[in-house]
Amino acid sequence: MQQRSIDVGVLGATGVVGQHFVSRLSRHPWFKPVWLAASERSEGKAYRDAAPWRLAAPMPEAAAGRTVHACVPGSAPKILFSGLDASVAGEVEGAFAAAGHVVVSNARNYRMDPLVPLLIPEVNADHLAVLDEQRRVKGWSGLIVTNPNCSTVVLASALAPLRQFGLTRVVVSTMQAVSGAGYPGVPSLDILGNVVPFIGGEEEKMQSEAQKILGTDGGRTPHPVVISAHTNRVPVLDGHTMTVSVEFRERVTPETVADAMRAFSGRPQALGLPSAPVPAIEVMREPNRPQPRLDAERGDGMTVSVGRIRECPVFHVKFVALAHNVVRGAAGAAILNAELMVAEGLA
Amino acid sequence: MQQRSIDVGVLGATGVVGQHFVSRLSRHPWFKPVWLAASERSEGKAYRDAAPWRLAAPMPEAAAGRTVHACVPGSAPKILFSGLDASVAGEVEGAFAAAGHVVVSNARNYRMDPLVPLLIPEVNADHLAVLDEQRRVKGWSGLIVTNPNCSTVVLASALAPLRQFGLTRVVVSTMQAVSGAGYPGVPSLDILGNVVPFIGGEEEKMQSEAQKILGTDGGRTPHPVVISAHTNRVPVLDGHTMTVSVEFRERVTPETVADAMRAFSGRPQALGLPSAPVPAIEVMREPNRPQPRLDAERGDGMTVSVGRIRECPVFHVKFVALAHNVVRGAAGAAILNAELMVAEGLA
Amino acid sequence: MQQRSIDVGVLGATGVVGQHFVSRLSRHPWFKPVWLAASERSEGKAYRDAAPWRLAAPMPEAAAGRTVHACVPGSAPKILFSGLDASVAGEVEGAFAAAGHVVVSNARNYRMDPLVPLLIPEVNADHLAVLDEQRRVKGWSGLIVTNPNCSTVVLASALAPLRQFGLTRVVVSTMQAVSGAGYPGVPSLDILGNVVPFIGGEEEKMQSEAQKILGTDGGRTPHPVVISAHTNRVPVLDGHTMTVSVEFRERVTPETVADAMRAFSGRPQALGLPSAPVPAIEVMREPNRPQPRLDAERGDGMTVSVGRIRECPVFHVKFVALAHNVVRGAAGAAILNAELMVAEGLA
Amino acid sequence: MQQRSIDVGVLGATGVVGQHFVSRLSRHPWFKPVWLAASERSEGKAYRDAAPWRLAAPMPEAAAGRTVHACVPGSAPKILFSGLDASVAGEVEGAFAAAGHVVVSNARNYRMDPLVPLLIPEVNADHLAVLDEQRRVKGWSGLIVTNPNCSTVVLASALAPLRQFGLTRVVVSTMQAVSGAGYPGVPSLDILGNVVPFIGGEEEKMQSEAQKILGTDGGRTPHPVVISAHTNRVPVLDGHTMTVSVEFRERVTPETVADAMRAFSGRPQALGLPSAPVPAIEVMREPNRPQPRLDAERGDGMTVSVGRIRECPVFHVKFVALAHNVVRGAAGAAILNAELMVAEGLA
Repeated sequence: MQQRSIDVGVLGATGVVGQHFVSRLSRHPWFKPVWLAASERSEGKAYRDAAPWRLAAPMPEAAAGRTVHACVPGSAPKILFSGLDASVAGEVEGAFAAAGHVVVSNARNYRMDPLVPLLIPEVNADHLAVLDEQRRVKGWSGLIVTNPNCSTVVLASALAPLRQFGLTRVVVSTMQAVSGAGYPGVPSLDILGNVVPFIGGEEEKMQSEAQKILGTDGGRTPHPVVISAHTNRVPVLDGHTMTVSVEFRERVTPETVADAMRAFSGRPQALGLPSAPVPAIEVMREPNRPQPRLDAERGDGMTVSVGRIRECPVFHVKFVALAHNVVRGAAGAAILNAELMVAEGLA
Repeated sequence: MQQRSIDVGVLGATGVVGQHFVSRLSRHPWFKPVWLAASERSEGKAYRDAAPWRLAAPMPEAAAGRTVHACVPGSAPKILFSGLDASVAGEVEGAFAAAGHVVVSNARNYRMDPLVPLLIPEVNADHLAVLDEQRRVKGWSGLIVTNPNCSTVVLASALAPLRQFGLTRVVVSTMQAVSGAGYPGVPSLDILGNVVPFIGGEEEKMQSEAQKILGTDGGRTPHPVVISAHTNRVPVLDGHTMTVSVEFRERVTPETVADAMRAFSGRPQALGLPSAPVPAIEVMREPNRPQPRLDAERGDGMTVSVGRIRECPVFHVKFVALAHNVVRGAAGAAILNAELMVAEGLA
Repeated sequence: MQQRSIDVGVLGATGVVGQHFVSRLSRHPWFKPVWLAASERSEGKAYRDAAPWRLAAPMPEAAAGRTVHACVPGSAPKILFSGLDASVAGEVEGAFAAAGHVVVSNARNYRMDPLVPLLIPEVNADHLAVLDEQRRVKGWSGLIVTNPNCSTVVLASALAPLRQFGLTRVVVSTMQAVSGAGYPGVPSLDILGNVVPFIGGEEEKMQSEAQKILGTDGGRTPHPVVISAHTNRVPVLDGHTMTVSVEFRERVTPETVADAMRAFSGRPQALGLPSAPVPAIEVMREPNRPQPRLDAERGDGMTVSVGRIRECPVFHVKFVALAHNVVRGAAGAAILNAELMVAEGLA
Repeated sequence: MQQRSIDVGVLGATGVVGQHFVSRLSRHPWFKPVWLAASERSEGKAYRDAAPWRLAAPMPEAAAGRTVHACVPGSAPKILFSGLDASVAGEVEGAFAAAGHVVVSNARNYRMDPLVPLLIPEVNADHLAVLDEQRRVKGWSGLIVTNPNCSTVVLASALAPLRQFGLTRVVVSTMQAVSGAGYPGVPSLDILGNVVPFIGGEEEKMQSEAQKILGTDGGRTPHPVVISAHTNRVPVLDGHTMTVSVEFRERVTPETVADAMRAFSGRPQALGLPSAPVPAIEVMREPNRPQPRLDAERGDGMTVSVGRIRECPVFHVKFVALAHNVVRGAAGAAILNAELMVAEGLA
């Protein structure tokens, strides 16, 4: 893996996802987070004063001293990671792309845009091909790529190795961590010792995003698999766990599914990208795993863990899948996207 | 509802379910818990010294002073509630039935016995008809009736009103409370801020028990619905929550399902039994309900709450169901069984 | 206890404390909550639409349909309970008092005003004597009484029976529930599986309020006891638990302290007020009690529980104290204050 | 720091503390855990089959394949770490010491033995001087050193830098993690959303152990400071938090205390031992720190964090202290003890 040193910036650097960007980029072998931007009210402050730091890992010294910029092009480096809130991400990210920046976004605004890749590098690196048309049609000198919603990435990653068997129908029920709602996010009065069986918009996102990710022609032809998602919030800090029942065009055994998942590997592993987990999917044998507290941090938070692969009385196979929602489901996902683009000469 | 005063006993009175029996029976309008029995090591002790009381409601004074008996027939009253552990319930309950007692059991041992009713009074009161054959074949002068596993009762109750539409397939994923595992039960190191996606034997129980309960001929002809269960433990104290996707013989709308559930009522409601919840099923309109902490105690813990009834992209309809696992799923269920039998002249 | 039927109102009826006022008053033998008021943005809405109901007990039907008023005098009944936020309580409560209303407030604004009683009816009912001067000096035709901060009430109630022995110094360390911070209050990301050893302003309140409550001359001469408070937030829903080490002028034994607490009783018990817990203080013998989940609801949430009364190697005696922070520490406290005033002919 | 490679063993390797020993030693620069021992029922099994692994970090490959020995001398290497349960530690550890082994124990059995050092290397490395007499009097060719109880180590470490000011009295109240009780340890039914204000024997241990650790003449002359401890269990996974009020012979300011803690350093730091945290005590400036979830892992779990150093109205100074109970309070503490002894030529 060749040595590199690339200046990057972070949009929305003071939020929860932004903090994870700053924390992970500060120990990244390629990227240097030299430019941090946030909303007007943070502009001009030192990052240490602007960001209500919520991570156990201490704020990186270099970042702590940096002055927070406004989210406007100009002094920003070429590659920008966006942890912006959806309420502003659409406009801001578009402006940076138009200004020639490579925007690697975690926001939902452009995810379903047919000209914007919704990337999981192990799953659909080929969707980057849509970027030429993105530039031409949008008239951008830069570009935007996105990563999926934090629960979608777990499901789509687990289903990807199974496309070869003809996926037809999936019923998934999630148990999602509170960190997925940002900060302040879920009030403790709502979730302590409780389950909230509803997360606004989440079920629709899982169903449509997964079809695009697993689809062809850069995602413009969605995968025909029909998905029914039940999304629930549970009192867990990090790690989205989900139970999945899968129907195939014809019968497939649990062993076949397990072998396919173990064998699963993609461009990130082939290119040896810094954030690429090996294996891409950890297939666990213990009868009671994966568990968020024990398994979310695998592969520095980038591994998707799957367990309890067994016969499904209703469909063919069922299993449990898990990944770290803020790493594999947000900041780490975007960083892997950027690594892929750099390695492919697209950034 | 006519006045009654019936002496009853509790087998396994010192365990978690036994404590709920003692607590609820002590304020019951019909039943008086005058005889408490447990394992040898508790025999002869005062109940207050033998039972590691775990309920928020204080131990009833009358019970506290009673001497704990061994689990052998003789001095016991006719009607006995059993909170015995499965390791001993089979033998002990059989002995009491042979000795002429009416054993109302929460243990799993006899649930799948074709001659033993697996009762949810609102759902299959007619299954009591099997008792004649039970007596004849087993040669018991007494009898045994059972209530379902604490997660089965939620699912079977929610599905019962839908039998009329031709249930064909169900995928259910549970989020179960720690009280379902008894005491000491789940170690806090395993479940604090965590999800354990496995409960031994639970998935098989949900699938087979629900088919018997919804079945005909006293449960000897199981309902043909095919069920796939995913069972998970979450850091919740009381209340099993589950997401359910249902397929019918032909298309049924969410409105039809909601109306059928609202209209659902059974023998307990018709007879006005003391523990009968009205309505039997609470259909909630709020987008984020039911929730265990807010809804498990409805109807003194006997109500089954259902919410988020909506279209299922894969099957026809999906929803969230919840009930109190130790009340509707254990002690309260058995007490309602006994009320039904008394009202029907069977005890 | 004579029958009464008194119309009352609630200021700040849509907040967490306001909801507890509405819930408890709706089943109160004397008071009828006929008038509900909140901020402008709720004015004119039905209460069911204006209040984000957070209680397990369902919203009372009668209240659900009421139209929410603005917090201005006029149509309001004479007695008003205030669950207003401190940012507005000062002005609004003063306006109502000036307009002739009896304002029974849970807000902190007037607590330390030398002319406003800071009441715990069992402890300092005599402080009501200051009301004459309050009317004269403030020129109010109405009046204001307040209840203490939710952690102060536990400490002051436990110390009250010990005044007779000459309290000199107290070190207290709290473990406080999240409900004490209102809603949305404490973010789950901050408190899940965590302890936050700081609650803004809380330590100062405990120290000064307790001295006023235990003091003489209507609270204008504070009790000389010196208090050092450590306040902490823990992942508990309801119930503030605290460890207390107490020094007396001369040696006092744990037995003497326990006897004094058991014997403790005040005007509410003497008058048989509806919300008066009997006993006022529950002295527990179990080695590991009180515990918030098991004991906060005692006496319908009004009982102060004390346990582990033992020798303190540094001072004389130490113990654990607990009460329900939203009931005994807020809504229930104010209601008991109002009951006392009605019984004493002051409202 | 010179390179070393020393074979070591673990007694009680399958328990929670034993697992932490195995996990930390497997990545230790000096020690190689080549010999693992546990109770008879584990003897002869592969470690992977004998240990119910509970750590997030996966079981080290090398350890997984090792055969578990019985706890008898013979094949064991010279240096042994003991995570044995107190019920057996006394006899077993004595036997190994008699057989010439250096036993570095986390068990409580020998802690208060006047001839056994109760070590916190930063605090009382000089207590190792008692080992000569230990050998002579006990007639052991080997030796035993111990580390304190998991809550004592936090208190004693925070008080050590303050000895110079003449410590006279301390009141401490703890909020302890469930991992301190081992596995299965605290039932989730007891601690979910709850506080248990009692931990058997813990208060006495904190009081007596701290006096020995801070004492002179190898701990045989206890420090005269009088300590009153309140110990509580809270729903936290790792990290014991405590509030501390301290009285000195004469007035000392918070600034002086903070400076003394920041300046605090001991033999481990001077010798640059692998597990020595730098600084030994982290003095935090944030108003709401330390917090177990954010700060327990500092210094690879070896740092003692202190915050909120401020005036105490009753004594002189009060603060919050925290450390990782299983690392700094158990496995890590013993490993640091062993590092010190090796560096000092005592092992």
